[in-house]
Amino acid sequence: MEQNIARLRTRLDGMGVSLRPHLKTAKCVEVARRVMTSPAGPATISTLLEAARFAAAGVRDILYAVGIAPSKLKQVLELRAGGADVTVVLDTVEQAQAVALASRQAGTRIPALIEIDCDGHRSGVLPTHRQLLLDIGHALDDGAELRGVITHAGASYSARGAEALRRCAEVERRSVVDAATILREAGLPCPVVSVGSTPTAHHAADLTGVTEVRAGVFVFFDLVMAGIGVCQVEDIAVSVLATVIGHQRDKGWILVDAGWMALSQDRGTRRLAVDQGYGLVCDMAGIPYPDLIVADANQEHGIITVRPGSSGVLPDLAIGDRVRILPNHACATGAQHRAYQVVRGTSDRVEAEWLRFGGWQ
Amino acid sequence: MEQNIARLRTRLDGMGVSLRPHLKTAKCVEVARRVMTSPAGPATISTLLEAARFAAAGVRDILYAVGIAPSKLKQVLELRAGGADVTVVLDTVEQAQAVALASRQAGTRIPALIEIDCDGHRSGVLPTHRQLLLDIGHALDDGAELRGVITHAGASYSARGAEALRRCAEVERRSVVDAATILREAGLPCPVVSVGSTPTAHHAADLTGVTEVRAGVFVFFDLVMAGIGVCQVEDIAVSVLATVIGHQRDKGWILVDAGWMALSQDRGTRRLAVDQGYGLVCDMAGIPYPDLIVADANQEHGIITVRPGSSGVLPDLAIGDRVRILPNHACATGAQHRAYQVVRGTSDRVEAEWLRFGGWQ
Repeated sequence: MEQNIARLRTRLDGMGVSLRPHLKTAKCVEVARRVMTSPAGPATISTLLEAARFAAAGVRDILYAVGIAPSKLKQVLELRAGGADVTVVLDTVEQAQAVALASRQAGTRIPALIEIDCDGHRSGVLPTHRQLLLDIGHALDDGAELRGVITHAGASYSARGAEALRRCAEVERRSVVDAATILREAGLPCPVVSVGSTPTAHHAADLTGVTEVRAGVFVFFDLVMAGIGVCQVEDIAVSVLATVIGHQRDKGWILVDAGWMALSQDRGTRRLAVDQGYGLVCDMAGIPYPDLIVADANQEHGIITVRPGSSGVLPDLAIGDRVRILPNHACATGAQHRAYQVVRGTSDRVEAEWLRFGGWQ
Repeated sequence: MEQNIARLRTRLDGMGVSLRPHLKTAKCVEVARRVMTSPAGPATISTLLEAARFAAAGVRDILYAVGIAPSKLKQVLELRAGGADVTVVLDTVEQAQAVALASRQAGTRIPALIEIDCDGHRSGVLPTHRQLLLDIGHALDDGAELRGVITHAGASYSARGAEALRRCAEVERRSVVDAATILREAGLPCPVVSVGSTPTAHHAADLTGVTEVRAGVFVFFDLVMAGIGVCQVEDIAVSVLATVIGHQRDKGWILVDAGWMALSQDRGTRRLAVDQGYGLVCDMAGIPYPDLIVADANQEHGIITVRPGSSGVLPDLAIGDRVRILPNHACATGAQHRAYQVVRGTSDRVEAEWLRFGGWQ
């Protein structure tokens, strides 16, 4: 984890852009303190529960990067009154009007970023949709604070190879720079120009006009990130510890006590060149057994086999032996657990337990 | 939920077989008390954390239905010393020897069921594997208590229609009855003959020789159970409440603040006749919008669309409107939440909050 953090920080320092890490991956104060550039942030979060927990831990500069619902503005105002500079995100005039109204009623200016749709992946205003951008900007300007624009290259998770990832990053950059230009030319403020995804953060060749980069999963990495070429398998800094509870020798199966409840049901490598099933199986030192994967998972049972079509050999694991399983998706697998057991390098001595949290309220 | 519990209880009462509900679906003391036939059980659980939590709530007859690892026997002994009759499950001679050794060392007899593989789905000894059954039985008899046999028709989740489900149930029944006969003819005890899965529990035509039925998801049901014909969509007793946070009108998308973190990544209806995406969308009274599904899900965003190929119409939902989303898999979706908000019928008044728990320790 320390190496992963240092790698992205060094890269962005070299490009002169600040890092606003997404804390949704770990949902853990101890990880947040190591990944943020200061104890006060900046930080990105995906739920108001995260905002409240991290604010309580001293984080002050918090971007809530999921489109705001009007019913959540009361909690945003409470967090702001408590000293946390919480910024909201929106992509409709209705939301902008609601944020402006809540601001006027509370006698404060809630800051908001306009979400830009850079790749048709999910939410946001197209950067070519000039009039809608201006309508949202003016609606915000009527009581709230238009702080800037934000986008997320969600399509980068389906890109393959460095060249495709560089193109995603450039499309991501240009979408917000174009939108910022539209707002500024109309006399509206746009101090923040925010981009981000782990794949584009690690591949952008040019970040001209961008003020900050958001990324989350880079802190741990996972098999999807390794599969699309953003990291190596050795960089993955989180695993699930499981115990062998049975064999079906005729079928070449080893059964472990980690099913989808422990691994998550994320099958993000299904569409990649190497399908890792529900996870890649390693020994206790974290060294992968060649081509050994969790091929199927029930609620509390994992079925380990050699990857179909490979020449790997099933290792001789006895009842009670333990293995480490690398996850497809660090965010999803982390969410199935209450805490991280912290180990250093290949040691299995637990140095600390770091609690994580889930939920919305 | 009350109707679902009454339906299975009435059915099994009529067949003269007891119900040992699987508490892993809800992981909630209040649900457990309503689904068990007495406050002391019997009950089935899938982790030793569940055993500890339910034992603390007064449950006494607890079957830990995942193959035992020797390292967990210390905790089993502690729970038993505290008054909970915890039974373990195993399918190898090594496990039986470990349970017998731990029993002798503790001066007690840990009860164990031998797991039978009725359909090649996961773990267990084939009921035709007479010698292995006897070897395990004799190994247990050397200090532990051979209490019987257990199987789970995991393949029933891929069966389609009442006739196929009846056949699964009969294969399930016969596998354990045959195994029990082998043990008894060799002079070994076999008082418990345990079968179970929600699909087979609701379709078994004959349970001769069976002493108890286990089932879990019947308490809530879900879209997978509806899809294979075990319940109707109207029977589903759990949903996720979500708020509209955006639109992509050109694409026919409604965005809500429930992504896979709230819904789980279970896509169990993908292979059924009707693919429900990440969930079926209902109004606040729980009435489904025709063919409206969560077609895609990111961590905290759900993308609602009309099911591809259907003639359904996108409802006119505004920013801030709320919907209920029925889950593919009640166990997986429940696991993403800290508590159930209890409502009655079509009311949205929350009568109570029932906490649930997760994790392993």
